[in-house]
Amino acid sequence: MRALVFDGKLHLRTDYPDPVPAPGESIVKISLAGVCGTDLEITRGYMEYRGVPGHEFVGRVVQSEIASLAGKRVVGEINASCRTCNSCIDGMGRHCPTRTVLGILGRDGAFAEYLRLPNANLFSLPDSVTDEAAVFTEPFAAACEIFDQTHLKRTDRIAVLGDGRLGALVALALRGENFAPVVAGHHPEKLKRLAALGLQTQSADELAPGYDAVVDCTGQSAGFSSAIALVRPRGTVILKSTAAAGAAMNLAPVVINEITIIGSRCGRFGPAIDALAARKFDPRPLIDATYSLDDGVAAFTAAADKSKFKIVIRP
Amino acid sequence: MRALVFDGKLHLRTDYPDPVPAPGESIVKISLAGVCGTDLEITRGYMEYRGVPGHEFVGRVVQSEIASLAGKRVVGEINASCRTCNSCIDGMGRHCPTRTVLGILGRDGAFAEYLRLPNANLFSLPDSVTDEAAVFTEPFAAACEIFDQTHLKRTDRIAVLGDGRLGALVALALRGENFAPVVAGHHPEKLKRLAALGLQTQSADELAPGYDAVVDCTGQSAGFSSAIALVRPRGTVILKSTAAAGAAMNLAPVVINEITIIGSRCGRFGPAIDALAARKFDPRPLIDATYSLDDGVAAFTAAADKSKFKIVIRP
Repeated sequence: MRALVFDGKLHLRTDYPDPVPAPGESIVKISLAGVCGTDLEITRGYMEYRGVPGHEFVGRVVQSEIASLAGKRVVGEINASCRTCNSCIDGMGRHCPTRTVLGILGRDGAFAEYLRLPNANLFSLPDSVTDEAAVFTEPFAAACEIFDQTHLKRTDRIAVLGDGRLGALVALALRGENFAPVVAGHHPEKLKRLAALGLQTQSADELAPGYDAVVDCTGQSAGFSSAIALVRPRGTVILKSTAAAGAAMNLAPVVINEITIIGSRCGRFGPAIDALAARKFDPRPLIDATYSLDDGVAAFTAAADKSKFKIVIRP
Repeated sequence: MRALVFDGKLHLRTDYPDPVPAPGESIVKISLAGVCGTDLEITRGYMEYRGVPGHEFVGRVVQSEIASLAGKRVVGEINASCRTCNSCIDGMGRHCPTRTVLGILGRDGAFAEYLRLPNANLFSLPDSVTDEAAVFTEPFAAACEIFDQTHLKRTDRIAVLGDGRLGALVALALRGENFAPVVAGHHPEKLKRLAALGLQTQSADELAPGYDAVVDCTGQSAGFSSAIALVRPRGTVILKSTAAAGAAMNLAPVVINEITIIGSRCGRFGPAIDALAARKFDPRPLIDATYSLDDGVAAFTAAADKSKFKIVIRP
């Protein structure tokens, strides 16, 4: 099959082996796949991943032992877990220590014609959720993970740092649940597009301290320091991006101001699909361009352009 | 009066001006004062503090407008707040942005014959709490702050990193509330003393990952990384020391493992005094030596000795 492969360099292969399902797995034909910041990081060495990247997708099940899945339009939870360890038994397969992760860790991903995933990872989509909306299920679930981890109040003053795709989705998710976040960034054009979606926006330079909660979606290590400076004493900082690695940081204000920091990664697909079906928000205006898999390398280049929100690939 | 003064260098002064009470303040004659890690940090430049250090004390009120305070044996909450801002109204005077802090920020401290504090900061002691126990009220309240900030379960596996005075008090506080922490450190002699107090101890090198909660009391920036490595996914790291400043740190595991980090500083005096009165634990065996104020500089040198738990100064 055709597949975008990263082996130290990103390139298209037309002779990549078709996925062979392990017991309990189905084969999905990809309809649409989204390029994520993590995919870009992978091409810079993140996780030392080698193989087919891509973990945001919508597709159709073309091979499955499960009758209720066969032929269905689906999205897929990206963490393939053992289902027997304590984390898995606790319903936290996303933290299974022996998990593989679609397109990130030990498992070929979605920038290909086909992928394989455990049957239990696949979620059938209602007709009301279009492919263009469904392709946002994974990052939207990650945005909604905040609701599983925190006790934010509707009246809390919330700042979302970062006007990129993650910041946009987090802000839309918050607004969809009747919170009133302000999204802050350095890209006036993107802030204008987010304002057009009904979000409150502000230049990152103009934010004043005192927020009850700050969500760092900057993908920069400097975002952490900004978040710490902007949150009120006893407030909450939510870290949504893994990019903040290795920089020198001063944790003294965290202790002095008794700040709570919550690392937040993937989320549950069920509530995300329900929210998309209920049209709590419509992510489709975030799509800037659709590329063919044949132009996958160009799609990555486009996704690295800071003026873009979301690039999708249609095999 | 006699006072230990830090003005870039720590030295005894015999001609230091007696404290003059502001409206609403009382004068306390110091009976006993404890040397804390923060005091040592101050002599290394922390907070750029200049004046009399010392914030752990027990004493007697020798001048007050409040009849119920006059002549009473007291301890004192170290944050002197405005009592009118939002933090103060919320009962969080410890986070008042215009606060002064005894011996740490804009207010002379306890390594002297007398100090002044707002009447509202002073807590009268029951007779059952000796001076030697009461001098631990402030650090013990800081240890108990954990209970105000977290929802730990009695069955949680909890590691306290650091076998110094802070680690010892946090572990004793946890045990006093029927938790079963393990204290880990690098000083076999101190671990032996803590074991003699009934605490479970372990060499820091022998800890295996998987703790539900890890309390970093190491006072080292490396403690943060250790805590992150030892806590289970979705677990809690509590940062109790401000020393972890400016080191390079990798926050990616915080996001990937969805760890919650809680900065924790000062605590409420009321519950700490109640716990001491109820003999939930006895901190007195932690006192290594008592110095005269005249030997205050030597007391600081002794407190910097890693084999010691607590040095106290009796004016």
